[in-house]
Amino acid sequence: MTTPIVHLSRRYTFPASHRLYTDRLSWAENEAIFGKCANPNGHGHNYRLTVTVAGPVDPRTGFVMSLDQLDDAVRRHVLDVYDHRYLNVDVEDYFDVVPTGENIAKRIWERLEAPLTGRLRRIVLDETRNNQFEYTGPSHPT
Amino acid sequence: MTTPIVHLSRRYTFPASHRLYTDRLSWAENEAIFGKCANPNGHGHNYRLTVTVAGPVDPRTGFVMSLDQLDDAVRRHVLDVYDHRYLNVDVEDYFDVVPTGENIAKRIWERLEAPLTGRLRRIVLDETRNNQFEYTGPSHPT
Amino acid sequence: MTTPIVHLSRRYTFPASHRLYTDRLSWAENEAIFGKCANPNGHGHNYRLTVTVAGPVDPRTGFVMSLDQLDDAVRRHVLDVYDHRYLNVDVEDYFDVVPTGENIAKRIWERLEAPLTGRLRRIVLDETRNNQFEYTGPSHPT
Amino acid sequence: MTTPIVHLSRRYTFPASHRLYTDRLSWAENEAIFGKCANPNGHGHNYRLTVTVAGPVDPRTGFVMSLDQLDDAVRRHVLDVYDHRYLNVDVEDYFDVVPTGENIAKRIWERLEAPLTGRLRRIVLDETRNNQFEYTGPSHPT
Amino acid sequence: MTTPIVHLSRRYTFPASHRLYTDRLSWAENEAIFGKCANPNGHGHNYRLTVTVAGPVDPRTGFVMSLDQLDDAVRRHVLDVYDHRYLNVDVEDYFDVVPTGENIAKRIWERLEAPLTGRLRRIVLDETRNNQFEYTGPSHPT
Amino acid sequence: MTTPIVHLSRRYTFPASHRLYTDRLSWAENEAIFGKCANPNGHGHNYRLTVTVAGPVDPRTGFVMSLDQLDDAVRRHVLDVYDHRYLNVDVEDYFDVVPTGENIAKRIWERLEAPLTGRLRRIVLDETRNNQFEYTGPSHPT
Repeated sequence: MTTPIVHLSRRYTFPASHRLYTDRLSWAENEAIFGKCANPNGHGHNYRLTVTVAGPVDPRTGFVMSLDQLDDAVRRHVLDVYDHRYLNVDVEDYFDVVPTGENIAKRIWERLEAPLTGRLRRIVLDETRNNQFEYTGPSHPT
Repeated sequence: MTTPIVHLSRRYTFPASHRLYTDRLSWAENEAIFGKCANPNGHGHNYRLTVTVAGPVDPRTGFVMSLDQLDDAVRRHVLDVYDHRYLNVDVEDYFDVVPTGENIAKRIWERLEAPLTGRLRRIVLDETRNNQFEYTGPSHPT
Repeated sequence: MTTPIVHLSRRYTFPASHRLYTDRLSWAENEAIFGKCANPNGHGHNYRLTVTVAGPVDPRTGFVMSLDQLDDAVRRHVLDVYDHRYLNVDVEDYFDVVPTGENIAKRIWERLEAPLTGRLRRIVLDETRNNQFEYTGPSHPT
Repeated sequence: MTTPIVHLSRRYTFPASHRLYTDRLSWAENEAIFGKCANPNGHGHNYRLTVTVAGPVDPRTGFVMSLDQLDDAVRRHVLDVYDHRYLNVDVEDYFDVVPTGENIAKRIWERLEAPLTGRLRRIVLDETRNNQFEYTGPSHPT
Repeated sequence: MTTPIVHLSRRYTFPASHRLYTDRLSWAENEAIFGKCANPNGHGHNYRLTVTVAGPVDPRTGFVMSLDQLDDAVRRHVLDVYDHRYLNVDVEDYFDVVPTGENIAKRIWERLEAPLTGRLRRIVLDETRNNQFEYTGPSHPT
Repeated sequence: MTTPIVHLSRRYTFPASHRLYTDRLSWAENEAIFGKCANPNGHGHNYRLTVTVAGPVDPRTGFVMSLDQLDDAVRRHVLDVYDHRYLNVDVEDYFDVVPTGENIAKRIWERLEAPLTGRLRRIVLDETRNNQFEYTGPSHPT
């Protein structure tokens, strides 16, 4: 008999700014690839982060995971570092990597995987109301 | 040749109240685990329920399933029992089980599985705009 | 020269339960008027509260009002009393008054008017995604 | 070592009208199955289309796929044909097929599969805020 | 002493199709003014209608107006006529008038003013998630 | 006889970054007032701008105002200057003024008032999904 698994998704938001630009390319190439997103002083978003964890339901509490514990992990490992920051300049994750939605989703996964001890299943990052990025970890290439 | 399968998701809402509290724990334990959610007289939510069914598309009607049939199953097996109720007190599903989002998603699956005759694929329950619970059945532990 | 006035609206949410029922009416009348909303043990909502204040913009800070100050007033005078409560039973505002959206909007205005010292302009209460109640105070009968 | 895969979802909207009606059925059967949706002159929706592509992240640009390239494919193969049209009358995809959400999702997949060269993963079509259709292609019968 | 007035807003949706085109103009003029919206066979929207009524709160029921009564008026005078229809062809309101959002908002006001017996205050029509039309009646030219 | 007036609201979004900080205050004062919003390198938002114009409905076209004309004014006078920019550094409107939501709403009004030739009625700026700023011009102190 398998234990039923429930997925819990919890949503966080953090305003931050970023710039899509890389020193590995010429200015003309940056502009061709990134357009307005390469503007020198950056721009920003209200990033919406949805973290999904999964597990069996604790028969005593009815929880897959305590929300306090989840919030605490996200706050300490992501929000305290990313919230109200200029990602390219303030966050070392993006010193060598362009902070595209794709890369931010991956980096957030990497930051949360260990603290969430095997329960992390999915990171969804909404950059705008039209663009969404989803990462389910290195072992789920789908 | 496989028959193409389409997933249809339909959204329902039902206001209800619940209390996170269990007699198996002391009052102090309940408070430590559930916080304000353990308040004696309960509180409520506009639960948003999304039911996903899947199947081949009927070549005549273009439907995976008739919406009337789906609505009827959800109304009779879920909404008539849960809508405008205090789940802990009015609904037997929660006489022994804490009505957390996790457990509500599971119980709704169990209520709909038979009536939807093999087509049910996913139950998503949004408790608030930040907390979402997803259950895909006992055989899909993901 | 008039000083330009800006309106600031800030949104809060609080889950709570209520029951539409009054002792002044017979059970049959209650049921005829309130339907499912009169169910004996209540039901709940994720109430969404939008508080609008207005004033001139402080030339130094660019603020109409400090968000901390606004949040503090709403927390102390509304959320600490209403959040995660059964309004009919736990909150004295509704011991004599049916906690309809109309009455909740009015009572929240009355709770916030003094603490917000003349800057309160509008209370909007969303009970569900389809029902909204708006109160602009006793002196604005519109 | 597997290359990490990120999913990018991008949302488009297009107003269009349709009628649920088929010549293969009698008028009475059409009415029984489709109800108001069979009204003779059609009705309309703001269709919301979410296209999901997947792939490894380009280490230089941080992109799974250029948004310009994705937008261009969706515009040329879907929006230019569907947007502001009466699907039954103006779009050959529905000359023989009832334009239900199920069929629209499938046809959009078929239109985008080749131009997106193996990266297409999912088509989600929201017909209203309550009805959603999802197609993941013929090889993913789920 | 003035009686406090509360505004109640209730939201309805109806899918319908329309065409922006008028016989008073040449085809070229129609195209110049209405663009894609003039396409010969029309297109559609999920119109979202918000009806606002105002009045004193009944001290017995706590209601400004019974939702059943409001729903009944909107259903009989608007939805039964507009829902799942091609406005230009099926609804006489638009035989001489282009069914723009502006005109639809006005015509809905005119349909509801008498049945709502002096309590109607505002009609808001959302045509898409970006375009909204508001009409507050002939005596409120604002 | 008054001519009926309809209000048209149209929504735009622009990502931008800003920093709440002013040289007129000490660093400690800035931090006390603005908190995380004073972080040295700024942060960002997906600003949502809703522009409301009003006027009589043109009996020929059914429009209060051509959307093309409105879009053109907003694009040229606001979006071309604000979109994908760091407001404090890139936009002269904020060289002397803290780019709070209040001030941004006012400055956008000032930019649009002349081009919209007397039809502008309201600027609403949503900074996040919880904070909204509204400005109705210097002559409507409300």
